[in-house]
Amino acid sequence: MRSTPEKPLLIGILGGGQLGMLLARQCQPWGLPVRLYSETPGRTPAHLFAQEVVEGHGWRDLQALRRFLAGVDVALLENEFIPAELLAEASAGLPVRFLPSLEAYAIFQDKRREKELARKAGVPTPDFAPVSTMEELRPWIERWGDLVLKTCQGGYDGMGNLSVDVRTPEEDIRRFLARGPCLAERKVSLAKEMAVVVARFRGTTRLFPLAETIQHDHICHQVLAPARLSPAQAAELTEQAIRLVEASGGEGLFGLEFFLTTDGKILYNETAPRPHNSAHFTLDACDVSQFAAVIHMALGQVPPPPRLRRPCAGMLNLLGTQAGPPALSPLEAFTADPDGALWLYGKSASRPGRKMGHYTLLGEDASLVLERLTSLQRRYSL
Amino acid sequence: MRSTPEKPLLIGILGGGQLGMLLARQCQPWGLPVRLYSETPGRTPAHLFAQEVVEGHGWRDLQALRRFLAGVDVALLENEFIPAELLAEASAGLPVRFLPSLEAYAIFQDKRREKELARKAGVPTPDFAPVSTMEELRPWIERWGDLVLKTCQGGYDGMGNLSVDVRTPEEDIRRFLARGPCLAERKVSLAKEMAVVVARFRGTTRLFPLAETIQHDHICHQVLAPARLSPAQAAELTEQAIRLVEASGGEGLFGLEFFLTTDGKILYNETAPRPHNSAHFTLDACDVSQFAAVIHMALGQVPPPPRLRRPCAGMLNLLGTQAGPPALSPLEAFTADPDGALWLYGKSASRPGRKMGHYTLLGEDASLVLERLTSLQRRYSL
Repeated sequence: MRSTPEKPLLIGILGGGQLGMLLARQCQPWGLPVRLYSETPGRTPAHLFAQEVVEGHGWRDLQALRRFLAGVDVALLENEFIPAELLAEASAGLPVRFLPSLEAYAIFQDKRREKELARKAGVPTPDFAPVSTMEELRPWIERWGDLVLKTCQGGYDGMGNLSVDVRTPEEDIRRFLARGPCLAERKVSLAKEMAVVVARFRGTTRLFPLAETIQHDHICHQVLAPARLSPAQAAELTEQAIRLVEASGGEGLFGLEFFLTTDGKILYNETAPRPHNSAHFTLDACDVSQFAAVIHMALGQVPPPPRLRRPCAGMLNLLGTQAGPPALSPLEAFTADPDGALWLYGKSASRPGRKMGHYTLLGEDASLVLERLTSLQRRYSL
Repeated sequence: MRSTPEKPLLIGILGGGQLGMLLARQCQPWGLPVRLYSETPGRTPAHLFAQEVVEGHGWRDLQALRRFLAGVDVALLENEFIPAELLAEASAGLPVRFLPSLEAYAIFQDKRREKELARKAGVPTPDFAPVSTMEELRPWIERWGDLVLKTCQGGYDGMGNLSVDVRTPEEDIRRFLARGPCLAERKVSLAKEMAVVVARFRGTTRLFPLAETIQHDHICHQVLAPARLSPAQAAELTEQAIRLVEASGGEGLFGLEFFLTTDGKILYNETAPRPHNSAHFTLDACDVSQFAAVIHMALGQVPPPPRLRRPCAGMLNLLGTQAGPPALSPLEAFTADPDGALWLYGKSASRPGRKMGHYTLLGEDASLVLERLTSLQRRYSL
C-alpha cells in the first residue's frame, strides 16, 4: 500500500535578489513550487525558479502582499525591508506560516529592538543609545567621542550608518537623523568581525560554522570558516548567539554579526533575520546549506546539524567592477579548480560594487585559501 | 589592469529531458546562457534554465536544427536520437563545436558500429552479428540458442530489444526486424551489470567512479558506487573502457555499460555518448559531477579528476508509480537525511515507470546504503 500523494507546499519568497534566488533554487529539486514577490517590474535573479510572480509597487504594497500571501503555505523572507506589522496585516486570516516568525522578524529588522533584546538577554554589545534629535545625540558625542549613528530600520552594508565625532558638521547629522529613529553606538576598536548563522525550529537550535568576515568600506569581501579565534572566544560567541536567538523566541534562520575588539572582547553587533552573505560557503562546504536549512523548516522539519566537509572554507564576494552586461573574466580561474565553486547570480547588469556572485574555495589551510582568494580578487573583471 | 570581459559562450543543449536540464542547471551559476532545442512544443524540464528555446518538429528537423545551431558556441547532446549526419549537415559552415564530437557520436549512436569498434580495439563483447532479415538471423538462433535482437539505432532502456529463442514466433521477429538494421547478440549469463562514465578531452581521459547498476525489466532501479568487483575485475573493466573511448577518437563524456558474466568475464555492452543515469550520484558524491565535466569541456577545459567524497554512494531512480501530477510522498523521507540528496526533475506529469527523479545516499557501507534505498523504494508514491 502506498500513501496518497499530497500536493506539494507552495513556497512564497518575499524578494527576488540573490538570497531569494538561492532559496528558490533549493526548492526546485525537492519539487516545491515557488511564488515570488517582486517589488519592481524588472526581472530578478529568483524569477528563474519561480512558477508564479506577484509584482508589487515597492515593499509596502498591502494589496499585492495580500494577493501574494493568499494560497502560499510558507512565506520566506530574504530582506528586512517589509515592516512586520504590514505582513501581519496582509496575512490576517490566511493560513500562511512565516520564516522567520514575524515576532522575531519585527525585532531584528529594528536596530534598537535587537540591541535592547541583547541587553536584556545579557549579551554584551557596544554601548548604545536611541536618539532622534541632535539634542539627544549631543551628550553621547561628548561622552564617547567617536560613535556610529545607525538608522533603526532599512540599512545594510553600512548604507544606514554615519560615523560621528566632535568635528562632524551638525548639518550632516541633522540630515541623517531626518531619516527616522536612530541608534547611536559607541565606536569600538575592532580586531576582527565574525558572523554565525543560527537556525531555530521547534525548540531545536542548529549552528552553522562560525565565520570571520573581512570587510572594506562596510562591505564584506572575504569570508573564512571556521573563524580564527581562540577556543574560549569561539565558545563565548557561540553561547551568546544561541542565547540571543533563543531570547527572541523566533523560529527560522538568523545571521548574527559580532565584533572582536582589540582588547579581546566579543560584542554583538546585529542580526539579519534571513540567510546571510557570510554563510554562502555552506552551499559547497557543508552537507546542509543555510538555504537547505530554511527549506527544511518550511517543510516542518528540524534541519540536520550542518557539518563542514573540509577543514576550511573561504569565500570571495564577486563585486561588479564596471557598469555593463555581466561577464566574469577570466572565467577559467573560477571554474577550473575542483576545490572551488562559482556562483553567479544572474543579475541583468553589473555596476561597480554590486554583488554579482561569489566564489567558495575549500582547503586544509586558512592562509593558503585566503592567499588564493586575494590573488583572484585582484585579477577579475565583472 | 583588468582584462576586458568577454561575452560568455552560448551553450546549446539538444534535448530538454532530465539530462538536458541537469546540464543547463550547471551552466546557470557559471553565467553561461543556454539555448535549448526542444523537439516538441511542450515544456520540458530544461526549459527552466534556458534563455532561448528553438522548437523543432521532432529530432530530424533540419531547418530548426540549423536555426538552433547558428550562434551557438558549443552544442551538447543529451540523447542518441539525432542522426550524426543530420547534425553535420545542419552545422555546415557554422563555427559550432559538438560535445561529444560528431564522429564519436555517430559510432555510439549505432549498436553495430560501436560493437565493431570494440572488436577492433580488442575489447571483449558478447558474440554478435549484424542482421536485417529472418534469413540472416536463423543461423544465429541455431548456433547460440538464446539471443537478444537490438535495433542498431534509437533504443534505450531495453525498448529497442527483443529476446529471441527457437520458440519465438517468426511473426514477432519479422515485425521487430522491420524497424531497421539490427544486431543479434548472444545471450550471456549475467552476474552483474556495471557502468562507468569516461570524459575525454584534448588527449586527457578522466574516469568517474565505477558503478554497479541494479536492473529490473531493463530499467535501472539502483546504482552503487564503487561497484563491488574484485580489484582485478575493476582494473580490467577500467582498462577496457579507456581503450574503447580512446579508440573512438572522440571528445566528450561517454557512459559505458559492461556485463560481468557468471563465469567471471567482463564484457562490453554499449555506450551512451552523453551523461548517463548511472552517474547521477556524481552530483552529490563527487567534487566534479558528470554534468560539470561536460561544461568544463564546453569551456575548453580538461575536467579535473573526480573524487568520491565518501566511501560509498547509492542512487535510487524515482520512477512514477501512478499517472497524474507529480507529488513525491512521503517527501520528508527523501529530504530529512543530510547524507541524502533528492533530485526531482520537474516533469509536468507522472506515469508508471517514468523517470521522475532520483535520490542519492552517501555512506560508509554499501549494504547499509542499499538496504536503506530498498526500504525507501518500497514505500514511496509519485
